[in-house]
Amino acid sequence: MSQSLSENEDTIIALATPNGVGAISVIRVSGPNAISSVDNVFSGKKKLLDCASHTIHYGKILESGGEAIDDVLVSVFSNGHSFTGEDSIEISTHGSPFIAQKIISILLQQNVRLAEPGEFTKRAFLNGKLDLAQAEAVADVINSRTEVSLRGARNQLDGILSKKIDSLRDKLIHTSSLIELELDFAEEDIQFMSLQQILSNIDEILNELEKLIQTFSFGKVIRDGVNVALVGPPNSGKSSLLNYFLKEARAIVSEVPGTTRDIIREDLFIDGILFRLFDTAGLRDTEDQIEKEGVNRSRNALKEADVVLFLNDSTVGFSENLYTEILDLSSSNRILKVANKVDLCNPDPKAYDVLISAKTGEGIQELFRKLKAIALGSSTYTEKTAIVTNLRHYQSLQKASDSLQSAKESISQQLTGEFISVDLRNAENSLGEIIGKITSDDILNNIFSKFCIGK
Amino acid sequence: MSQSLSENEDTIIALATPNGVGAISVIRVSGPNAISSVDNVFSGKKKLLDCASHTIHYGKILESGGEAIDDVLVSVFSNGHSFTGEDSIEISTHGSPFIAQKIISILLQQNVRLAEPGEFTKRAFLNGKLDLAQAEAVADVINSRTEVSLRGARNQLDGILSKKIDSLRDKLIHTSSLIELELDFAEEDIQFMSLQQILSNIDEILNELEKLIQTFSFGKVIRDGVNVALVGPPNSGKSSLLNYFLKEARAIVSEVPGTTRDIIREDLFIDGILFRLFDTAGLRDTEDQIEKEGVNRSRNALKEADVVLFLNDSTVGFSENLYTEILDLSSSNRILKVANKVDLCNPDPKAYDVLISAKTGEGIQELFRKLKAIALGSSTYTEKTAIVTNLRHYQSLQKASDSLQSAKESISQQLTGEFISVDLRNAENSLGEIIGKITSDDILNNIFSKFCIGK
Repeated sequence: MSQSLSENEDTIIALATPNGVGAISVIRVSGPNAISSVDNVFSGKKKLLDCASHTIHYGKILESGGEAIDDVLVSVFSNGHSFTGEDSIEISTHGSPFIAQKIISILLQQNVRLAEPGEFTKRAFLNGKLDLAQAEAVADVINSRTEVSLRGARNQLDGILSKKIDSLRDKLIHTSSLIELELDFAEEDIQFMSLQQILSNIDEILNELEKLIQTFSFGKVIRDGVNVALVGPPNSGKSSLLNYFLKEARAIVSEVPGTTRDIIREDLFIDGILFRLFDTAGLRDTEDQIEKEGVNRSRNALKEADVVLFLNDSTVGFSENLYTEILDLSSSNRILKVANKVDLCNPDPKAYDVLISAKTGEGIQELFRKLKAIALGSSTYTEKTAIVTNLRHYQSLQKASDSLQSAKESISQQLTGEFISVDLRNAENSLGEIIGKITSDDILNNIFSKFCIGK
Repeated sequence: MSQSLSENEDTIIALATPNGVGAISVIRVSGPNAISSVDNVFSGKKKLLDCASHTIHYGKILESGGEAIDDVLVSVFSNGHSFTGEDSIEISTHGSPFIAQKIISILLQQNVRLAEPGEFTKRAFLNGKLDLAQAEAVADVINSRTEVSLRGARNQLDGILSKKIDSLRDKLIHTSSLIELELDFAEEDIQFMSLQQILSNIDEILNELEKLIQTFSFGKVIRDGVNVALVGPPNSGKSSLLNYFLKEARAIVSEVPGTTRDIIREDLFIDGILFRLFDTAGLRDTEDQIEKEGVNRSRNALKEADVVLFLNDSTVGFSENLYTEILDLSSSNRILKVANKVDLCNPDPKAYDVLISAKTGEGIQELFRKLKAIALGSSTYTEKTAIVTNLRHYQSLQKASDSLQSAKESISQQLTGEFISVDLRNAENSLGEIIGKITSDDILNNIFSKFCIGK
């Protein structure tokens, strides 16, 4: 982490508010020279270096010629009492991108450099203000679009997952250090912990890990929403259903550029959960080159779908052929068989999961209920439950679980303590990666490069 | 202004930063309940009502159920030490539109209402923090896109125009009050000021007004840029010239939706001045309905142009017919006759204002120089000169000038003092309208409704 520490000697700057015209914009400066560099271009009642932390000062930012660029309010955060844990300044300007750009360019001449994406949050992590899982949650909070995704992200930002991981890791460290102590005294034949005890400890931790791992399918839904592929034969009423959603469920039609010919996407919010609907065009083989590409896209959408909403024209009957194709293509076994046009006939309820009429709205609430049930599964999520929403965390938990399984095998094969110890250390490290106790520049760069600049 | 005062009893709220995802968003609350209403939903170390002005406090905004929506930094502005002159709060949240919306909706349940466009600035005006011309400059500062427009707006925000108007108005009040005093004592035949003196005073003020009025054509350029219609026969090289601008002069192609078929618009910055280029399609009469509309649009663009850039294919010669048409249509007499393709031939320099080659770049700098000269005219603008950039101010100055002319006529016709006095009072009021000493709710609503919400 020595590289990171040297990076921290820089003072960084970025626009913190969205780019565009508004009432105000905020520019953020952080690092050892944050206050002095702004002092060099700021004209107010007193020097910012003489001001207490968490105070606000009116003044003007001056060009090198002494001309005022803008009246600003400057907020001072000193003595580590800031988001980054470094001296920080926030400059609140009139909300013109031109002004913000000018002020940033003036400060770039004051021993300050442009921040990289996520660099403020990275510094907050490196300075111990947040652990790594919490730092990652910052981006999730910012990107949250629904009640449920915000709650999931806040849960993680508040450290609920981190605390859980930390306590499991402590248990592991306790167990492995006893094993290692035993190894040191091996010749003296002292046993600090029975094999039985060790096995029981490992099983207990494994059990907790499995519970966490199981929250991921739900956590993913919370964070990213549910991909729903809408499939049906021609005239099954896909457009009518989409239109109904549009009216009833605050769906947002977002025509993905370049693919509108083939796939229409809609975002649908049901009780705070985001359902991303893909209306797939066709699945059948064709010789036509352009159609072929459409078919490929539809098939890919189907493969990525979490749920397939399989729409049938119930006046015609269940489309067995298409159903076979879907089963063939879709890795998901969550296919919702829907009969449409029930206002025109009485389909066999046993052949379908839901009966609807996109025309009258009959059955749509039931369809929503089923979609939600599929998305959430049997999860019993409460505010204070640790949940895993992040693929990186999920993978680290899997690695930790694998290492513990391996430790159990070592024990059952009566291998020496060294083998068990290595497995337990690996599991510890995997857990440590989640909260950033164990990390590398690669991991950090990978995480923070996905942030926006200014955060 | 009693209505305005009662309006001010409301506490208002709005998102102050541009809408969108970013590192942070800022929500602004202002009015008598600003601090207490935020206190009701804020959980921090202490009550905001107990905090000093210009201090920043970390805490959480809670939902009615007590659940945290977000960690925030709250800035407190009390005892009139705020932009609006009222108690104000700024809430700095994670930069998610969803979070900002949630926090605003929670505060709307706390005796707070959504702000109207420009309402924060309107309150700053009503509370005497800014005069009206300065308040109007706030919007100009925010919308400034170039060095020059920012300087013009700052000039006005700093009160340079206001001070000038105020001093002219004072002179007028002095003159008219002496005339009125004279009227009171008319029977006693006392003359406080000779007619000569009055005439000389009025002339002096008129002279100053005229100078200000003359700054407007320059001020308009500063604020709004220069509309340049690009006209030329087919194959004169309009596209090549636009492409050259794109490369060389940081032009921004902004295809106006719905009109792209007929008019392409580009914004071109030359030494900090904005030139809005319109590439007009055709001018000739046609029977084709669709073409007809294109021709109408081109003609309108030509009428609104400040400058016509008339491009000729010099290998073919000067397009006399088109030139006649332009003269016919364009109210502007500022037509720049440009010879293109001078890399291919040697056109007669006397027939054109500039010789260029859009292919080699020859003459383009000269073209820029001429465009700039036309835009700025002979104006000798320095930082501290009062300039008029706003149409409303220009019109009020015109009215004031007309009233003074009328006063002069009354004097020359030896009308009684009452007539002169009425004219002088009218001129005073016209000047008072600029800085908001004399105003009406209609004027105010008209001005501030053009602001963005949150300002």
